[in-house]
Amino acid sequence: MPLSKLKHPTTKRISPKSVYLDHAATTYVDPIVLKVMEPYFTISFGNPSSLYKLGREARSAMEKARDEVAKILGAEPEEITFTGSGTESDNLAIIGTAKAYELSGKHIVISSIEHSAVIEAADKLRKEGFEVTTVGVLKNGVIKLDEVKKALRPDTAIVSIMYANNEIGTIQPIREIADIIKEFRVKQNRSPLSGLPLFHSDACQAAGALPLNVNKLGVDLLTLNGGKIYGPKGVGCLYHRRSVRLDPYIVGGGQEKNIRSGTESVALIVGFAKALSLSAKNAMSENKRLKKLRDYFIKQLTSSIPKTTLNGHPAKRLPNNVNVSIFGIEGESMILALDSFGVYASTGSACAARSLLPSHVLLAIGLSPELAHGSLRFTLGRKTTKADIDRVMKILPDVVEELRKISPIRL
Amino acid sequence: MPLSKLKHPTTKRISPKSVYLDHAATTYVDPIVLKVMEPYFTISFGNPSSLYKLGREARSAMEKARDEVAKILGAEPEEITFTGSGTESDNLAIIGTAKAYELSGKHIVISSIEHSAVIEAADKLRKEGFEVTTVGVLKNGVIKLDEVKKALRPDTAIVSIMYANNEIGTIQPIREIADIIKEFRVKQNRSPLSGLPLFHSDACQAAGALPLNVNKLGVDLLTLNGGKIYGPKGVGCLYHRRSVRLDPYIVGGGQEKNIRSGTESVALIVGFAKALSLSAKNAMSENKRLKKLRDYFIKQLTSSIPKTTLNGHPAKRLPNNVNVSIFGIEGESMILALDSFGVYASTGSACAARSLLPSHVLLAIGLSPELAHGSLRFTLGRKTTKADIDRVMKILPDVVEELRKISPIRL
Repeated sequence: MPLSKLKHPTTKRISPKSVYLDHAATTYVDPIVLKVMEPYFTISFGNPSSLYKLGREARSAMEKARDEVAKILGAEPEEITFTGSGTESDNLAIIGTAKAYELSGKHIVISSIEHSAVIEAADKLRKEGFEVTTVGVLKNGVIKLDEVKKALRPDTAIVSIMYANNEIGTIQPIREIADIIKEFRVKQNRSPLSGLPLFHSDACQAAGALPLNVNKLGVDLLTLNGGKIYGPKGVGCLYHRRSVRLDPYIVGGGQEKNIRSGTESVALIVGFAKALSLSAKNAMSENKRLKKLRDYFIKQLTSSIPKTTLNGHPAKRLPNNVNVSIFGIEGESMILALDSFGVYASTGSACAARSLLPSHVLLAIGLSPELAHGSLRFTLGRKTTKADIDRVMKILPDVVEELRKISPIRL
Repeated sequence: MPLSKLKHPTTKRISPKSVYLDHAATTYVDPIVLKVMEPYFTISFGNPSSLYKLGREARSAMEKARDEVAKILGAEPEEITFTGSGTESDNLAIIGTAKAYELSGKHIVISSIEHSAVIEAADKLRKEGFEVTTVGVLKNGVIKLDEVKKALRPDTAIVSIMYANNEIGTIQPIREIADIIKEFRVKQNRSPLSGLPLFHSDACQAAGALPLNVNKLGVDLLTLNGGKIYGPKGVGCLYHRRSVRLDPYIVGGGQEKNIRSGTESVALIVGFAKALSLSAKNAMSENKRLKKLRDYFIKQLTSSIPKTTLNGHPAKRLPNNVNVSIFGIEGESMILALDSFGVYASTGSACAARSLLPSHVLLAIGLSPELAHGSLRFTLGRKTTKADIDRVMKILPDVVEELRKISPIRL
């Protein structure tokens, strides 16, 4: 149904206060985070490469931020490189290692539900002669471990599997995948700790909710960013184990030990570190609260709206993620209808919101294109309350009923 | 001389207020700019790809910023792509066009005084089989136009020559270079407006001082960034004429019309546009003021300190740039000595401040390694006053005298 034909349901506006339930798309910047950023815009604004006091101050703030991030990851500061986004970190991780290890192997493994930053990076390499194997997932979104095992080859340079999915929230068994890779290294008579294939995980959605200790996870590279953890957009980082060789992607002045050029945006870096550290500190209690809300919401949705099913794993999912398919309706129509009531949700990844194609993630877990188009993602946040959920539940069933009346798909 | 051996001169501290004379390294964020940025961190924080009101608000702010930038460049909004830095824009311009036109030619022309973001991007391509011709400059830093003419080949894909140099401030005859390129296109029976070779110019240092109308300049691509024009660090833009094909460099969610992926940092983009627009508005009067100060400073330096020479063109130079070579002294020693008096200057590019190699720009204009090592760059800014210059002139001659006493190089 073309959007222009959508008539808003007749249900009345309940309250002018909006309910933001799209924290996986992006979060607001925590006021505490903004406060620590501000001096680096206006007072300690020096270029961290400059030798004088103002430059050294900026550098020292940046290095303190790097220490802070490293500590949370159980890593060394020199294993942390700051970038301009999660997307850039993903590109750097995959293309940077692929190029550095080109002579050892031109094969890459990714999963079918990776973020487009990983998929497109792999595609870029494919065009340059690399081979890419895509590993499938179960209906609940969990990676098929036997396919990972089968995908590994003597010429595999890197395996990239996300920690938690941005659309359906499914959490991957990162440690088990790491163990499979380590076993394979041993079988190939390579160092279990530093041999190929390397293991990269995009943890942009996991950060703030799941443990990030890289040694416990067993990853060699890890991507994080600021805009999902109540930090600023426009900054990310890549953890890369000391033994990992990495070709720089963005080249120039040789900043970040020549791994990522461009004058470092100290304000953003300081904000990112603060945001990550606040998220880590609050994760335990916040997870508990969110899980309760999430499960309450899922129960309400699937019990109050007929033909509504949960997408993704019921338990192995991010504490804040609710993703349902509502049969017979286009997600976009629901988004816009909810929008008119001040409720902000999405169909899936915000990055793909302007595409008309059904989500590759939902197709990968076996949904029909119709059900994939009828998906709705709510991602809860720090300020989300039970009252917010109740408000959505007051609106949504009516919205669905109205939209189903004009839907060409029969129930 | 190792830095550790440097003894600070005995001259007394004159005032605790610091004098920042390194505006080419980076500028503080204008409070007006920070003010327009703030709501996009905390209130209108939506992901500009999201379909609901909060997302549309963010998008609309971003598009307004794009319009603002386009207007200043005399371009169309769709010709502006926001990036994470000037370095990234340079990389995208050069690698993005080289890849897009690979089948038409694998030859690139740059100058010997380009920013490292351009040199390293060209180097990256060289390693992939592209040929790079480097055009030299005259002793005053102006590009050798006859060398540009000779460098052009039927397989030249792109010519990249900076608008104004970051170290010596020399302004290049961009329009004349554009005309040479257009003539060559015609000779090759190509469209004078959209044929190869393309012409890119890095205008990061020129912005805020020189006219930026892309049609008057005759460029096909132009790089700008925020951190040099009293805007935030971590944001830049690339102008690319509508007819220019450009392979995306950072890939993923397909933001910025698929040219640059990664969630857009709306706060930074809005701040960048505001900073550019404020700079453009004040350029005329500010240039006049700065030129006067600059020439006063140069006269003081070269008349009060023996064996001191100006680097770069005396007139065709950025209004805020002073670059001198002081014979017999290492620039770094002077930087640190000045630092102890609260005066912040640099030897050259901040990006290279931590390198021990002499500046490639100073070597390119024919300086001996000794003179290149003895260079000092002061770049003035909006708050710089004659009193600041006088203060430096009260300190510097003594600093030079003291340092010359312990210098191994005899006058």
